[in-house]
Amino acid sequence: MATTPASTRQPTGDQLLEWMQTLSNWGRWGPDDQKGTLNLLSPEKTMRALGLVQEGVTVSCGRDITFTPAIDTPRVSQHFMIGGGDKYRPGEGPDRQVVVDYFGLVFHGHTVTHVDSLCHFMWDGKMYNGASSTLIDSRDGALSHDVNVANQGIMTRGVLVDAARLRGVETIERGDGVSLADIERAERECGFKIEEGDVLLMRTGQLGYRDRHGPVDPYTAGSAGPMPELLPLFKERGIAVMGTDTGNDVAPSPYERFSNPVHQVGIVALGLWILDNAWLDDLSEACAARDRWEFAISINPLRLPTVTGSPVNPIAIF
Amino acid sequence: MATTPASTRQPTGDQLLEWMQTLSNWGRWGPDDQKGTLNLLSPEKTMRALGLVQEGVTVSCGRDITFTPAIDTPRVSQHFMIGGGDKYRPGEGPDRQVVVDYFGLVFHGHTVTHVDSLCHFMWDGKMYNGASSTLIDSRDGALSHDVNVANQGIMTRGVLVDAARLRGVETIERGDGVSLADIERAERECGFKIEEGDVLLMRTGQLGYRDRHGPVDPYTAGSAGPMPELLPLFKERGIAVMGTDTGNDVAPSPYERFSNPVHQVGIVALGLWILDNAWLDDLSEACAARDRWEFAISINPLRLPTVTGSPVNPIAIF
Amino acid sequence: MATTPASTRQPTGDQLLEWMQTLSNWGRWGPDDQKGTLNLLSPEKTMRALGLVQEGVTVSCGRDITFTPAIDTPRVSQHFMIGGGDKYRPGEGPDRQVVVDYFGLVFHGHTVTHVDSLCHFMWDGKMYNGASSTLIDSRDGALSHDVNVANQGIMTRGVLVDAARLRGVETIERGDGVSLADIERAERECGFKIEEGDVLLMRTGQLGYRDRHGPVDPYTAGSAGPMPELLPLFKERGIAVMGTDTGNDVAPSPYERFSNPVHQVGIVALGLWILDNAWLDDLSEACAARDRWEFAISINPLRLPTVTGSPVNPIAIF
Amino acid sequence: MATTPASTRQPTGDQLLEWMQTLSNWGRWGPDDQKGTLNLLSPEKTMRALGLVQEGVTVSCGRDITFTPAIDTPRVSQHFMIGGGDKYRPGEGPDRQVVVDYFGLVFHGHTVTHVDSLCHFMWDGKMYNGASSTLIDSRDGALSHDVNVANQGIMTRGVLVDAARLRGVETIERGDGVSLADIERAERECGFKIEEGDVLLMRTGQLGYRDRHGPVDPYTAGSAGPMPELLPLFKERGIAVMGTDTGNDVAPSPYERFSNPVHQVGIVALGLWILDNAWLDDLSEACAARDRWEFAISINPLRLPTVTGSPVNPIAIF
Repeated sequence: MATTPASTRQPTGDQLLEWMQTLSNWGRWGPDDQKGTLNLLSPEKTMRALGLVQEGVTVSCGRDITFTPAIDTPRVSQHFMIGGGDKYRPGEGPDRQVVVDYFGLVFHGHTVTHVDSLCHFMWDGKMYNGASSTLIDSRDGALSHDVNVANQGIMTRGVLVDAARLRGVETIERGDGVSLADIERAERECGFKIEEGDVLLMRTGQLGYRDRHGPVDPYTAGSAGPMPELLPLFKERGIAVMGTDTGNDVAPSPYERFSNPVHQVGIVALGLWILDNAWLDDLSEACAARDRWEFAISINPLRLPTVTGSPVNPIAIF
Repeated sequence: MATTPASTRQPTGDQLLEWMQTLSNWGRWGPDDQKGTLNLLSPEKTMRALGLVQEGVTVSCGRDITFTPAIDTPRVSQHFMIGGGDKYRPGEGPDRQVVVDYFGLVFHGHTVTHVDSLCHFMWDGKMYNGASSTLIDSRDGALSHDVNVANQGIMTRGVLVDAARLRGVETIERGDGVSLADIERAERECGFKIEEGDVLLMRTGQLGYRDRHGPVDPYTAGSAGPMPELLPLFKERGIAVMGTDTGNDVAPSPYERFSNPVHQVGIVALGLWILDNAWLDDLSEACAARDRWEFAISINPLRLPTVTGSPVNPIAIF
Repeated sequence: MATTPASTRQPTGDQLLEWMQTLSNWGRWGPDDQKGTLNLLSPEKTMRALGLVQEGVTVSCGRDITFTPAIDTPRVSQHFMIGGGDKYRPGEGPDRQVVVDYFGLVFHGHTVTHVDSLCHFMWDGKMYNGASSTLIDSRDGALSHDVNVANQGIMTRGVLVDAARLRGVETIERGDGVSLADIERAERECGFKIEEGDVLLMRTGQLGYRDRHGPVDPYTAGSAGPMPELLPLFKERGIAVMGTDTGNDVAPSPYERFSNPVHQVGIVALGLWILDNAWLDDLSEACAARDRWEFAISINPLRLPTVTGSPVNPIAIF
Repeated sequence: MATTPASTRQPTGDQLLEWMQTLSNWGRWGPDDQKGTLNLLSPEKTMRALGLVQEGVTVSCGRDITFTPAIDTPRVSQHFMIGGGDKYRPGEGPDRQVVVDYFGLVFHGHTVTHVDSLCHFMWDGKMYNGASSTLIDSRDGALSHDVNVANQGIMTRGVLVDAARLRGVETIERGDGVSLADIERAERECGFKIEEGDVLLMRTGQLGYRDRHGPVDPYTAGSAGPMPELLPLFKERGIAVMGTDTGNDVAPSPYERFSNPVHQVGIVALGLWILDNAWLDDLSEACAARDRWEFAISINPLRLPTVTGSPVNPIAIF
């Protein structure tokens, strides 16, 4: 891939529209496929990924789910105790000594680590692979393309492009994003090539910065994320999952028709599985300590039929 | 372990009380430990588990979460769409082509695959390792012993004691349970010994039977589960996690003081992590096809601070 | 109104379609009206209603909301305590002595006393008064015709047609319904005429029967309700609200195109406010004790913008 | 009541403790009473209240429930559509033309108009009338003193002390509150005496100010409210309900032991029903326009067994 100055690589809106066609995976895995880029996983890939494990050390790439509202978490997760241990009084029986609780959440957004299923975004009334938007029923949920198609889990190779570290910054600024230049530099300096079936993780530092310095409203303050110029690379290399420590689209969007170009072209055309709001700071430390930027990774979405994604706790294994 | 007729092995209530002391792991991993038997995991164990993987094939041990009430699911999980794809009309812009949803659940019970954290049960006002029940606050949730102590994931060896298959029955009857005799037979016939750090899975067939024949109320119809006589073995062998395709206690309980002896002695005394309502029918097929009853297993609880457990989708890897 | 045998009065499907036009109130109160038959309330009517009050005795027409699932309550209401008084220990301060809770519900259905707002049903893509169905947004809720248009409360005359008592039965059978003959008999025997601005209550006995004998599934066992033959009378008399102790449509519906004819013609064409699942057994006793079947009634829907109705506790005043 | 300078009337903490005894209504209406000051309602009082109605005009004293988080609404109310009208397509049948929704809320707090039941606050492990705090079960809810004891509705006289208007201010400052001097002035100038069985409404202007100027965090910015010095008057006059357009306690509290003195003494000792966050600006206009500050008022709490209060839409009738 030739080194072009980043500033000239920003695709136009027309290019994005063209990519909707040229990067499309529609039909590639049959007319009824709902798995998209998860088809690029394979037992062989899993074996190669496990072959990378040398220590047996695990590192979580999930962020703690919080139950406190914040400016970037308007639809706050809920947690209700059904009973508590605090009610026990000496002499009471076992029925007073069990606790149960309820939690619920809107995982989409900017703070919960989650995967999107392929119905999260549509384009011109169609989902990935041509299925009608109407299958995402406002009463009964996702009657196609739900997250349960990933219910056998994702166990493959992960690679980390630590863009913030490579640039020597605490965080990539909101409005800026991970670019092809960052990817190229990581491949040059970090000892890996992005390959088919990979989970490609890219770190901006934004989520850690947010947790240290406080939340801002992404709808006004913007967001870092993967730049749309990466879309052809996602297709060419055949990544299975793309994830960052952001909501995965640079904001504000410079495009009129594309509010979330990476989601819209990635999910609808490529059938790309996207991991939003991954926690990559601990992984960054783990990789840097070893100067090794590839690892096995296990992502096990919950079995949630009709749901449009799942909160996850991705685990990297060194 | 001597072969005693199963009928004579049933511990008395006094024995269970004694086991509360003699099987205790309190203090074993320090006065502040909240991880209990997860301390028996180790990088070395993870490496040995991954060494078992020969094919790269994954098998889910999770059951689909359903949003339909049933007699054994009185607190039904909730799912609400926030918008739907069905509202799109030709010519509308991208803001009409994104869908978001909410789900919430009480995972404890008899139908959702989940792990219990070590606060789920208390005894005499104390949790595992002596912490006060009052730390499980009916307002603020589990201020100690929450599921987030498992947030680095569980990647270790799993073994399956397929008790229903060994007995040649479709399901072990409700009221009966997996016994020491089943374990001993599995170890004789299936080529493994239960070892430290294992995820010990035991299949009764009950959950599959329920899905084929319809739900019953476990509070009146009873339940299969692991028999309390297994508790010393759990301690001796040093398993990290115990799971079955049941709610993990034989019901009705023959004990006056113990409503859920396996949970009560297991969680409170041993600090044992328990996996309830695992889906083991697919795993059973996968093991039988290979005549191999050990495998790597990945269980990644969600990062849910203050919550008393987590729904999970455990993935076995062959 | 001529006395026709009930059996010949059942409108055909074509008649219902015709009534959609002939009974329509569209445009009657302006092109933007969302209040429908609540326009028939007036200060004068309120004054006349209050003039009926002789004793100052109140009688609730609401049924207790329950948090227990039942065959006719598949979407069970939720209630979670946020803290409890049971955790208090002597000497603790006031912050341990306050309790808060959460409740939530799907009030539509067959068990919660509630009013429907005029968006609850549409016909051919339009709501009452011609507004587009698309205003009921699956993401943002009812952007028109929500229950908040009733936020100044309903204080008017109520009359009770106690059809079960008049017929001398414990309950009108499911599949049967309150007929014109019942209305006519009530007007002959009970000392009132149904007039403009009334809350017309009709008692089948079904809800009390259900609470005494156990729930059944209305989708298979059917339901009593007001018969569609009443629709012209609702229009002619100008009632403001119609309510019964049922879900307000006889089931199963004998019509192919009309699943809920009373709701569909009543709400969409007349703009009729419907009170579902009112508790009328106490009111029946109160009326019978006085042999007086008219009273003042206060229905105060919650101020719920974008919501399609409201649970209520209607209070009759004698 | 002698006119004492307001500044000298502020009770000390010891006085509040004394009032817990001297203002107590415990035992007054029997050892099992859970209704407290609602016992001061009576058919005669209802008749007198209805006798005040001259026009038949209703005015809501409820605030719109919102589903948007705000700094003073951290536990935001929820609203989910179950389907929407926007999915209808020409030619589709009636099953696509019905909408249903879910709403849920924590009504306690500073923004939702609601009544507190008498279990909302305890003192030294006891509720009003001596019942044990343990009856408010963190699992099963309020097993006593729930809001359902008010299920026959409140139809009585209301009076408005429009303190902000009397003082000529837009809003009483946070930290200040409605005083005895305000009450005395209202009684002198507004043509009413507060009497037994009244709903005493007091307007600070705070809620309207909040809606015009934006929310603040009451835990840091404080709040207006009724001053604790009013408590003896509440008892002497025998009001049934006290309500303001605030959360009903001046904040910050100057007392060490009393976080919410009006709630704590009012609810626990007097058994006083408190109406929080009433919307009194429209009522203020209606009263001023007529120069009449008394009216009938209808408050119909929902029938919510085990719940600690209820959202309401109080309706004043002129």
